[in-house]
Amino acid sequence: MTTNFKPILLKGIRIYSDGQWIEHGYIKIKNQKIMEIGNTDHLSLQEEYEVLNVPLSLKAIPGFIDVHIHGANGADTMDATKEALDTMTQALPGEGTTSFLATTMTQEEKQIEEALINAGKYISEVQPPGKAEVLGIHLEGPFVNKEKAGAQPIQHIINPNLELFKKWEELANQTIKIVTLAPEQPGGLELVRYLKANGMIASIGHTNATYEQVLEAIDAGVNHVTHLYNQMTGLHHREPGVVGAAFLKDELKAELIVDGVHVHPEMVKLAYKQKGKEGIILITDSMRAKCLKNGNYDLGGQDVIVQDGRAFLSNGTLAGSILKLGQGVKNILSFTGCHIEEAIEMAAVNPAKQLHIFDRKGSISVGKDADIVLLDENFDVYMTICRGKVAYIKGGK
Amino acid sequence: MTTNFKPILLKGIRIYSDGQWIEHGYIKIKNQKIMEIGNTDHLSLQEEYEVLNVPLSLKAIPGFIDVHIHGANGADTMDATKEALDTMTQALPGEGTTSFLATTMTQEEKQIEEALINAGKYISEVQPPGKAEVLGIHLEGPFVNKEKAGAQPIQHIINPNLELFKKWEELANQTIKIVTLAPEQPGGLELVRYLKANGMIASIGHTNATYEQVLEAIDAGVNHVTHLYNQMTGLHHREPGVVGAAFLKDELKAELIVDGVHVHPEMVKLAYKQKGKEGIILITDSMRAKCLKNGNYDLGGQDVIVQDGRAFLSNGTLAGSILKLGQGVKNILSFTGCHIEEAIEMAAVNPAKQLHIFDRKGSISVGKDADIVLLDENFDVYMTICRGKVAYIKGGK
Repeated sequence: MTTNFKPILLKGIRIYSDGQWIEHGYIKIKNQKIMEIGNTDHLSLQEEYEVLNVPLSLKAIPGFIDVHIHGANGADTMDATKEALDTMTQALPGEGTTSFLATTMTQEEKQIEEALINAGKYISEVQPPGKAEVLGIHLEGPFVNKEKAGAQPIQHIINPNLELFKKWEELANQTIKIVTLAPEQPGGLELVRYLKANGMIASIGHTNATYEQVLEAIDAGVNHVTHLYNQMTGLHHREPGVVGAAFLKDELKAELIVDGVHVHPEMVKLAYKQKGKEGIILITDSMRAKCLKNGNYDLGGQDVIVQDGRAFLSNGTLAGSILKLGQGVKNILSFTGCHIEEAIEMAAVNPAKQLHIFDRKGSISVGKDADIVLLDENFDVYMTICRGKVAYIKGGK
Repeated sequence: MTTNFKPILLKGIRIYSDGQWIEHGYIKIKNQKIMEIGNTDHLSLQEEYEVLNVPLSLKAIPGFIDVHIHGANGADTMDATKEALDTMTQALPGEGTTSFLATTMTQEEKQIEEALINAGKYISEVQPPGKAEVLGIHLEGPFVNKEKAGAQPIQHIINPNLELFKKWEELANQTIKIVTLAPEQPGGLELVRYLKANGMIASIGHTNATYEQVLEAIDAGVNHVTHLYNQMTGLHHREPGVVGAAFLKDELKAELIVDGVHVHPEMVKLAYKQKGKEGIILITDSMRAKCLKNGNYDLGGQDVIVQDGRAFLSNGTLAGSILKLGQGVKNILSFTGCHIEEAIEMAAVNPAKQLHIFDRKGSISVGKDADIVLLDENFDVYMTICRGKVAYIKGGK
């Protein structure tokens, strides 16, 4: 696909390109791709490129990839409308997210199916640049454990069902990338094996699995953990549980909601100490209220109260987050003392590798999609470029 | 003190001396001390030394130091008799332990006082070589938290009381080395500060402290954790608890009961991953039934059932262990995959450093006490030498 917008040039800034900083660097962007990266002193100017006039103090880093996000700015994947996904793709560049998995949640079959059809269609059609890209679908539930429902409506939770899943795969136009499930439930391991065999990610989540059951699930193909710590068996000294397995097994990449609410900052530090920068994937798990003001919102037919940075059901259960991924990146710097390079691994590199799209996303490299975030000196998002087109500028574009 | 037994010579064996293996090595032992270490090829024989005839496949390593042990072979520190301590000092070399802290438990004041007087006297008198040495007292309770009593009789648990402790210090002839307490209880931090200021170790244990309270306790002087995981606030993702603090704070050295019963083998692995070889101290926490057969035994006035390697109260609460420290060393090799060198750190070096006696115990070095364990190819204890005198030989001496 080619587009008609002008090729752009960023210059004079710091660029984090495949594990190295290029000082006083430049990036040439054309046809949605990164064409050239180098030192500005050696730049041969070509008139076709429009120079973006940005402060030289900025850092260019790869766009964030959110593999677990339900909604933002009033829209939710479960709305099952093109408008909802448009709203999300337009809102997310503001937090540095340039691509994501539209995440469904436990609902009646019919509602899930509508959401899958809608997202599957959206993803399969041409997605114009200048907005975040929907990479695929993360199916969270209904194949989870009622004991660890969290904000998944308990009455719609069902056992893992391979036939039903195959139907959904069709409806979603083969765009499902991750399935959060409870492998200990009847049919769980069968579904895991199917996902693994067909190139999808089986993620253990909303689960009551014992440590032994996690080991079985890993053998069957589970390699991902849905929001580590939340809605799973915790660490006990005579039963390590899912948390213990996540800590001990390098095979498992762990999603982490770093809003300081879902997980205590010191426990974020502990997860980082355990899993290292390779083992963690920053997510938001955000719902429609993100970007909006405090108040009452809908989440899968349930009333959610948003107040003081928290989103919760009337019974106090945390119900998704209103975290912006850019803030999650800033938080992990402050909670763990890690460096921005490590945070980039967790917000861009690891999700790209886990989704097997590191050949086209996840780092600033020649030939890859021009998904670029420019951070200011406070690590706040100054500008976001989605597939070669500016999607967000701080203070309005 | 000098003794009349003959100087001894070990030769031709592997010796682990201060972080290095000496192949085909020799050790000269005289007046309870290690006089010389070297390669057997360079050994100048002196007739005064009696050569111990041992298999050349043996490994000489430092004797184990058990900082938390109540009893063994039918005897308990709370028996408050010289005979009880004699029994322990004679039994423990069989498991490779060459010195230890006689550990009291929560009881009526009078009974604690009798135990302190007895142990204080025992420690202050000359302890003949050829038996394990009582290095001091570990006072476990009564200054703990009823919420985490475990096998500490709940009716005798009291708040930390500095005046009472000072009296006990006197009665114990200043031989108290470690105090297990719940710093979150009224008077807890005051006692911690006193212990720290007076060269004793304040250990957090049988405690309901929150993470924040542990940080306060560390500031006050706590630097030791009593049987990590057991009887303390566990790890929760919104409250890291004492376990979280133990994982995250290098200031804290953590005791660990590696019998596979008190702590799941994978959780031992996790503790090792978190704390490293410097941060863990292997203990037994054993009670009188160790070395005896299954049956019913007394622990602080409570009936304890010993069966299948476990010791528990009638309500199912684990009541100390019947672990031998030599077995704990073997277990940590198998649970964590660590090497014997690391296990030696955890069983000998770390406790010696923590007790500030590394100048005379904890490694095979010239000038130090000749506390030596000879392990066979299965890492079983073949022979134990306590301050220069053979205290145990496998299969009888």
